[in-house]
Amino acid sequence: MDDGKVLITGACGFLGNLLATHLALYHRNLILLDHSPPPSNPVPDAEYVTGDVADAKLLESVITADVHRIYHLAALASSGSEANYELGLRANVDGTRAIIKRCKDMGHCPRLVFSSSVAVYGPLPASIVEGVDGETKFTDTTTAFPQSSYGTQKLISELLINDATRRGFVDGRCLRLPTIVVRPGSPNTAASSFCSSIIREPLKGETAVCPVDPSWPLFMQSPRTVVRNLTHAMSIESLKGNERAITLPGFTTTPKEMVEALGEVGGDTKLVIWERDPVIEKIVYSWPGFVDTPFANSLGFHVDKSMKDIVTAYIEDNKTDVKRLNAK
Amino acid sequence: MDDGKVLITGACGFLGNLLATHLALYHRNLILLDHSPPPSNPVPDAEYVTGDVADAKLLESVITADVHRIYHLAALASSGSEANYELGLRANVDGTRAIIKRCKDMGHCPRLVFSSSVAVYGPLPASIVEGVDGETKFTDTTTAFPQSSYGTQKLISELLINDATRRGFVDGRCLRLPTIVVRPGSPNTAASSFCSSIIREPLKGETAVCPVDPSWPLFMQSPRTVVRNLTHAMSIESLKGNERAITLPGFTTTPKEMVEALGEVGGDTKLVIWERDPVIEKIVYSWPGFVDTPFANSLGFHVDKSMKDIVTAYIEDNKTDVKRLNAK
Repeated sequence: MDDGKVLITGACGFLGNLLATHLALYHRNLILLDHSPPPSNPVPDAEYVTGDVADAKLLESVITADVHRIYHLAALASSGSEANYELGLRANVDGTRAIIKRCKDMGHCPRLVFSSSVAVYGPLPASIVEGVDGETKFTDTTTAFPQSSYGTQKLISELLINDATRRGFVDGRCLRLPTIVVRPGSPNTAASSFCSSIIREPLKGETAVCPVDPSWPLFMQSPRTVVRNLTHAMSIESLKGNERAITLPGFTTTPKEMVEALGEVGGDTKLVIWERDPVIEKIVYSWPGFVDTPFANSLGFHVDKSMKDIVTAYIEDNKTDVKRLNAK
Repeated sequence: MDDGKVLITGACGFLGNLLATHLALYHRNLILLDHSPPPSNPVPDAEYVTGDVADAKLLESVITADVHRIYHLAALASSGSEANYELGLRANVDGTRAIIKRCKDMGHCPRLVFSSSVAVYGPLPASIVEGVDGETKFTDTTTAFPQSSYGTQKLISELLINDATRRGFVDGRCLRLPTIVVRPGSPNTAASSFCSSIIREPLKGETAVCPVDPSWPLFMQSPRTVVRNLTHAMSIESLKGNERAITLPGFTTTPKEMVEALGEVGGDTKLVIWERDPVIEKIVYSWPGFVDTPFANSLGFHVDKSMKDIVTAYIEDNKTDVKRLNAK
């Protein structure tokens, strides 16, 4: 593949910015598209474009014949898509469709890595529950029955990319991402917010609430591993077939194990408050905790080794946010 | 449910016109929307509207608060969607989306019956093939891996309707229709065209070619039964849950059995020419021949009893097209 230009959509989001920072080490031709303006500490030598990914006119100037690789990360997240139906469709479906349309018109079939989500799965249909020691097991081929507008819209984008790949408009790779931990920053309104909070806040010397059963299985991937997997998906030469949805091999852990790992690296585990919240439990318990991912495994995707590794990497990557560890 | 108005989209197509003719016996408030102008023999007392189902402005005048039932049949068929990607998306996705948007804005949550297709299924994923006496068996919960733009777009509409049902914008019912036989009219470019031709043409005294193995299983439903099932889907009061895709219980037969039925009613079976075509075989052999439909069965959907019944009904409903039978 010709080196060419690399486009990232949603490039100013958490994951987009992390990916751009990583790619800037290897590529000089980065185009970073986002509806938000560039951050105060921009990625060096990259071309920032501010605008809407579903804007066909804008894409004409952004996706040119020398753009051979596209990371499509722009999205309205789950709570946002539930709150604003039209905006979710525009961000999560029309954006994908506009990219495909432009690639079709260009006729140069770039590689397209799309950030999908395990939110495409709803609860397992009763007919295909496989009990494994009481665990509910999802596999690559479990039928996706999304139970949110976000999951629905991500699955629609996957289907559009599958079809566009079959037709030769793009060479798509749709990664179904697990929950990402530990996210830096502040708690947000996502039901999954506690997954990062119960590590991040105690490392700041602050309390955090775990609203679910301490032994509930959670399916996760660290930010470092997600970036490795996004670039790995782009690098695969030999991906065959039209079904381009790949469920990533996450790491199954529990809140109890997470807090134990916090303790192992010197964090104050007493700052985690165990206070179950039935509303959050209902949402979290509908997510796949255990997933078999033979397809991703056969393609060499990466998985985190232990919760302690994830916490250690978070501390290395976010030194200014970790206040109380060294003081301990 | 208040009687209200009944809207049919795609009302001038084969199925739409058949449904409208049937409904006109019971309803005086039919609105018949199609991009084609009304037929020369219009359905009596119905209001015809000519226009594009994806036209938001048009839908504002068509879907009013007194429209309580919508049959959404407007579609670009499989060969058309493969030939014209953009037009397929507009007809098969944007139409559904515009209807949902209008119902959301109205806030009156009408019942919506959508004509989906077994084309949403691609070949069975290797991991879930269930061998039953050598048959490849599809079920309601078989993962849909569409291998055509038409199938992809129908599945996307199903997902949009599932989500819109969950959110209370519409009360959706998506019927995955089998191949419809016997269609009146002339042969067309669809790969399934022979399924009607091998009955219809000999009844006109003309030859027809069967391009597949005489013993290949085909999954079918007659026009009369499809109309019964569309109205049955609308009449169900108690449909629960958000997953509104219902695979209809088709009738599994073979070309050999079809031609035998033709003979039983007095047709000339020597007018069927057996000439296998590898191109058509490849397409037809990717369709589900056997489907288990416990969901539809539990809801009381109808299935044809025998191929002879289907051929007899065709003759009754299309007397002017059946020329040589009485002369025999």
